[in-house]
Amino acid sequence: MVVILKNNPDEAQLQSLIHWLETKNIQVTQSLGESNHILGLIGDTSRIDMDLIGALDIVESVRRIQEPYKKANRKFHPDDTVITVKGTTIGNGELALIAGPGAVENDEQMLQIAQAVKAAGATILRGGAFIGRSSPYSFQGLGKEGLDALVKAGIATGMPVISEIMRISQLDYFKDVDIIQVGARNMKNFDLLKELGKSDKPILLKRGLSATYEELLMSAEYVMSQGNTNVILCERGIRTFETYTTNTFDISTIPVLKSLSHLPVVADPCHASGRAALVAPLAAASVAAGADGLMIEVHPDPTHALSDAKQQISPAAFADLAETLKTIRNTVKPQ
Amino acid sequence: MVVILKNNPDEAQLQSLIHWLETKNIQVTQSLGESNHILGLIGDTSRIDMDLIGALDIVESVRRIQEPYKKANRKFHPDDTVITVKGTTIGNGELALIAGPGAVENDEQMLQIAQAVKAAGATILRGGAFIGRSSPYSFQGLGKEGLDALVKAGIATGMPVISEIMRISQLDYFKDVDIIQVGARNMKNFDLLKELGKSDKPILLKRGLSATYEELLMSAEYVMSQGNTNVILCERGIRTFETYTTNTFDISTIPVLKSLSHLPVVADPCHASGRAALVAPLAAASVAAGADGLMIEVHPDPTHALSDAKQQISPAAFADLAETLKTIRNTVKPQ
Amino acid sequence: MVVILKNNPDEAQLQSLIHWLETKNIQVTQSLGESNHILGLIGDTSRIDMDLIGALDIVESVRRIQEPYKKANRKFHPDDTVITVKGTTIGNGELALIAGPGAVENDEQMLQIAQAVKAAGATILRGGAFIGRSSPYSFQGLGKEGLDALVKAGIATGMPVISEIMRISQLDYFKDVDIIQVGARNMKNFDLLKELGKSDKPILLKRGLSATYEELLMSAEYVMSQGNTNVILCERGIRTFETYTTNTFDISTIPVLKSLSHLPVVADPCHASGRAALVAPLAAASVAAGADGLMIEVHPDPTHALSDAKQQISPAAFADLAETLKTIRNTVKPQ
Amino acid sequence: MVVILKNNPDEAQLQSLIHWLETKNIQVTQSLGESNHILGLIGDTSRIDMDLIGALDIVESVRRIQEPYKKANRKFHPDDTVITVKGTTIGNGELALIAGPGAVENDEQMLQIAQAVKAAGATILRGGAFIGRSSPYSFQGLGKEGLDALVKAGIATGMPVISEIMRISQLDYFKDVDIIQVGARNMKNFDLLKELGKSDKPILLKRGLSATYEELLMSAEYVMSQGNTNVILCERGIRTFETYTTNTFDISTIPVLKSLSHLPVVADPCHASGRAALVAPLAAASVAAGADGLMIEVHPDPTHALSDAKQQISPAAFADLAETLKTIRNTVKPQ
Repeated sequence: MVVILKNNPDEAQLQSLIHWLETKNIQVTQSLGESNHILGLIGDTSRIDMDLIGALDIVESVRRIQEPYKKANRKFHPDDTVITVKGTTIGNGELALIAGPGAVENDEQMLQIAQAVKAAGATILRGGAFIGRSSPYSFQGLGKEGLDALVKAGIATGMPVISEIMRISQLDYFKDVDIIQVGARNMKNFDLLKELGKSDKPILLKRGLSATYEELLMSAEYVMSQGNTNVILCERGIRTFETYTTNTFDISTIPVLKSLSHLPVVADPCHASGRAALVAPLAAASVAAGADGLMIEVHPDPTHALSDAKQQISPAAFADLAETLKTIRNTVKPQ
Repeated sequence: MVVILKNNPDEAQLQSLIHWLETKNIQVTQSLGESNHILGLIGDTSRIDMDLIGALDIVESVRRIQEPYKKANRKFHPDDTVITVKGTTIGNGELALIAGPGAVENDEQMLQIAQAVKAAGATILRGGAFIGRSSPYSFQGLGKEGLDALVKAGIATGMPVISEIMRISQLDYFKDVDIIQVGARNMKNFDLLKELGKSDKPILLKRGLSATYEELLMSAEYVMSQGNTNVILCERGIRTFETYTTNTFDISTIPVLKSLSHLPVVADPCHASGRAALVAPLAAASVAAGADGLMIEVHPDPTHALSDAKQQISPAAFADLAETLKTIRNTVKPQ
Repeated sequence: MVVILKNNPDEAQLQSLIHWLETKNIQVTQSLGESNHILGLIGDTSRIDMDLIGALDIVESVRRIQEPYKKANRKFHPDDTVITVKGTTIGNGELALIAGPGAVENDEQMLQIAQAVKAAGATILRGGAFIGRSSPYSFQGLGKEGLDALVKAGIATGMPVISEIMRISQLDYFKDVDIIQVGARNMKNFDLLKELGKSDKPILLKRGLSATYEELLMSAEYVMSQGNTNVILCERGIRTFETYTTNTFDISTIPVLKSLSHLPVVADPCHASGRAALVAPLAAASVAAGADGLMIEVHPDPTHALSDAKQQISPAAFADLAETLKTIRNTVKPQ
Repeated sequence: MVVILKNNPDEAQLQSLIHWLETKNIQVTQSLGESNHILGLIGDTSRIDMDLIGALDIVESVRRIQEPYKKANRKFHPDDTVITVKGTTIGNGELALIAGPGAVENDEQMLQIAQAVKAAGATILRGGAFIGRSSPYSFQGLGKEGLDALVKAGIATGMPVISEIMRISQLDYFKDVDIIQVGARNMKNFDLLKELGKSDKPILLKRGLSATYEELLMSAEYVMSQGNTNVILCERGIRTFETYTTNTFDISTIPVLKSLSHLPVVADPCHASGRAALVAPLAAASVAAGADGLMIEVHPDPTHALSDAKQQISPAAFADLAETLKTIRNTVKPQ
């Protein structure tokens, strides 16, 4: 941490600040110039509140140098985290293909799609049971019944399953779900993250619409600080001024997070774009940029899907795409 | 709703769409040109899923014309909503001054600030008890104990009190709190909004960091759809590329929401700016733009506050500001 | 400037860097910790290229501490710049009211509006002659003929006039124009800025749609570095995700720029909002936040204006607004 | 175009609007419902000013349905534009590799890099001669002398050359430059675009930092409206709230522009990211998403480059990357 002082700082206040920092085991070095004075803070500053220091009369600004996340930080954990669930691996050079319908509609639909995506190369089955919609008048998902259909289809086809949780009290329903997804809207629902940190299931954490890389990693840190280190990070688009796509897919997230953190990174091109025609090029781009996996919404009859109709692709399109993705993966895979 | 068709739409699919809309009591008119065909949908389209129609092969795009919110819409409720709690009015030309510390620290601090802000002109007392922090290693608030101190200070000074709720299971703790605040991070926590819609307490709903005006009004609609129509909207800054301020305070929100909705609108210049020096000018600007009230963080010793130190002002500064705000209010108040 | 080094930096490279900096008259202090090493650079770092240092193998990142602008910086020029043109003052506690049509249409229209806005309290006359439109098929302004009509109307009503320049080769046409405006699109047209820096006329510089405060001040620095220090800064809205307004009016710009710089700051609520109904509340907010002036588009018949019809107000509305603005100005004016 | 009327529109005004539109050869159909009235405008609405109609008393809002660009629109020009310059093709399934230094430094450096990138697979040589810098105190390029060195190196290695123009008066210097680049800052410098529209050289047009897809295409339209239809579109990142990367590389631009327009689309991963480590993954992603080419800054000694040091890669890194890109291109190339 670096503290930039105002000109001519009050000497008593300066000594008081330095003394206080030293009681926190922070070593302070000073760079005193004509027009600015800089304090360098050395030691574990992750528990020092920047705001407290920034509010002092003698301080002009404070800048963090160390990342505030520890457990998610590649500097302290150089080796990739590899997650294995029911024999399927995420990370370690494998390409995880998470596929399934936006919303679970019924047992038959779920089983039919599960078989289709499995045949096309999917490794993990997805399906929305609790669905957050911006209007209280829209379809909100089948709930527990939807989770049951998803779990049954997963068992029938031998794939682990993933679904999104909305609130802590739903945790009981997820006991047979293999991976729990936290949606973009809940990325900063810290109470929910802490509860999931006590679970033994992998957590797929989606980036919030206006979350920075550091904020996403701090949300992962919330989960990991409670003991659950099996976190998968997911880029799904951010909100910008461009409205042609639902969100702006931030492809840089993939190589950046892979360098800052040891956690696996997957991409969701469907929510990012909101347009079926963009799913294939964005999926291909994600793999080329180093993604460990993809989450893709697949529906046998997208135009009759109950949710997110515009962004789902057919099983045939998914099968074609899976082939392309594997080829690109082999091209860019580090030897 | 307007549906723009692709060139040369398949006639059978077009008739099928028109028929389906008519079963939903939507009347359809056609504008057929050489290079585009437009369908005009007339009737209550708030329950028609735009995505479903947008996903059809023959459709190029769909645009909503009616606002998707009904209960929050001024078109259907032309008169201003006025909220009265313990004799204090929000709306109806009154200027609500909500003041208090970022975080409740203890009984004495809370009472001391309550007396100071009351004397300076505050009408409602605020204090944070459950505090969402981006780091799991930061101070997270006193919790229930903090709420108790806030309630006691409110009773002692005769002011209604407001505090932020984080999760549904905390609702029991809020039984003596007069107004429940939903923070920006929870603006799309629809489960929480629905629960609060069953409460009989006014809800102050803060705009999310990346939420549009329409999304904020849809979140109000979530609360109102369950019966609780006492919702106060609050602008607290949005996330943009500018990083000098914590967020970008969107002053237009105030006149825009006042025209689109009948709900009262207040502003939070502290979180919007993250800088104490900006609180007074932004507060003055808010009143000049027509705000029904302000929420301001006041602390007797801002540099020793336990949270948000950089953006709190002293009781003396608050007293000065309150005078200016009242004068501006009288200048711009509609006769 | 602070340089954060990677762990275990190569000693020879480090000494080479320090030596190079010392040849540039920069003094270097070192803070060496276990997990990070910080170099503090003291002296005039405004001519040190951050990118060059940031690209070195041993460097993790570089942060600037001193502002890169000098002539526009209040730290080095504590007194407000006051601009006087033809007896009209901008700055020094005066409220400059710049008004006139979006586009000059002809001599009669220009004179009629000039008389109307003068009567309503305007102090400077505006009128667009060269108009940048996003479509090549839209009306692009009357050009030189429009400037002539503006100048005549200014002389007839005794007001200085302002109009926007688009390219360097137009400079000759502006010899009778009193203040030259640089639009948002040209804020980073550095060649144009340098030419205007050789002029003796005040320059009104609008913030670009995606320009930070620092970038706006650096553009002012471009003008000032050539000798012309009469620069007026103008907030006119930035581009964000919100599309209800044309742009998001960033009210914080006003107090922030007034604190960082000594230059006068005015606001343009018409382009910021793109909606006539928002002009009055945003203008009032600007004055409450400390603006030195406003630029407002006024047209006797807004719905028949040739450009920007949606955001112009009538002379009567402008007269009412001017009264309100003066009252607010007196309320917030520093004694 | 669709015009949404306010409730109970004045009948005389409505008839007047309809009549006026008919004089412009626009056919009007009406959809009249209880709570909204819609006018469908059929015909060539590209020359109808939306703002004029939107400002009418009886109108609530106006929405464009047809794209405002014609010559750049794939609907009217279904076949891909293919650009050939000195035997090198851009478009038509070829992968254009534009490489060279950020800034031309001298004849020797330019020739050395030209030979290195040619050997590594580059097809077009780039080099900055006029360089826009945010500080007036930074290196601004060698100017005409730099262009001469670039042209000489291009001839020596048999590659066409590209460089950026800053102002119209520089056009004479570009007579031996094969492709003229318009930078992000000048994307809305409409005067410059119109001049370039009269040139017979291909124009590479970079997307502005806050420009929408439609605005980029409208800028292309400005060039094309003057007769020069050889325009290459270039994605180079947009400005968002994320500051870890210089800009946010919007990968969706590539497939979106390829579908909306027939013009070739290339990507510049260097300026988009501002980080050398991200150049390779973003370049790979661009090709996977369907880009027709890439522009990459290559420097034999990036840490001693005079400009943009942080984002340039070495010739060896470029050679490796070029191999990967060609393999991905063959994987995703439409058969």
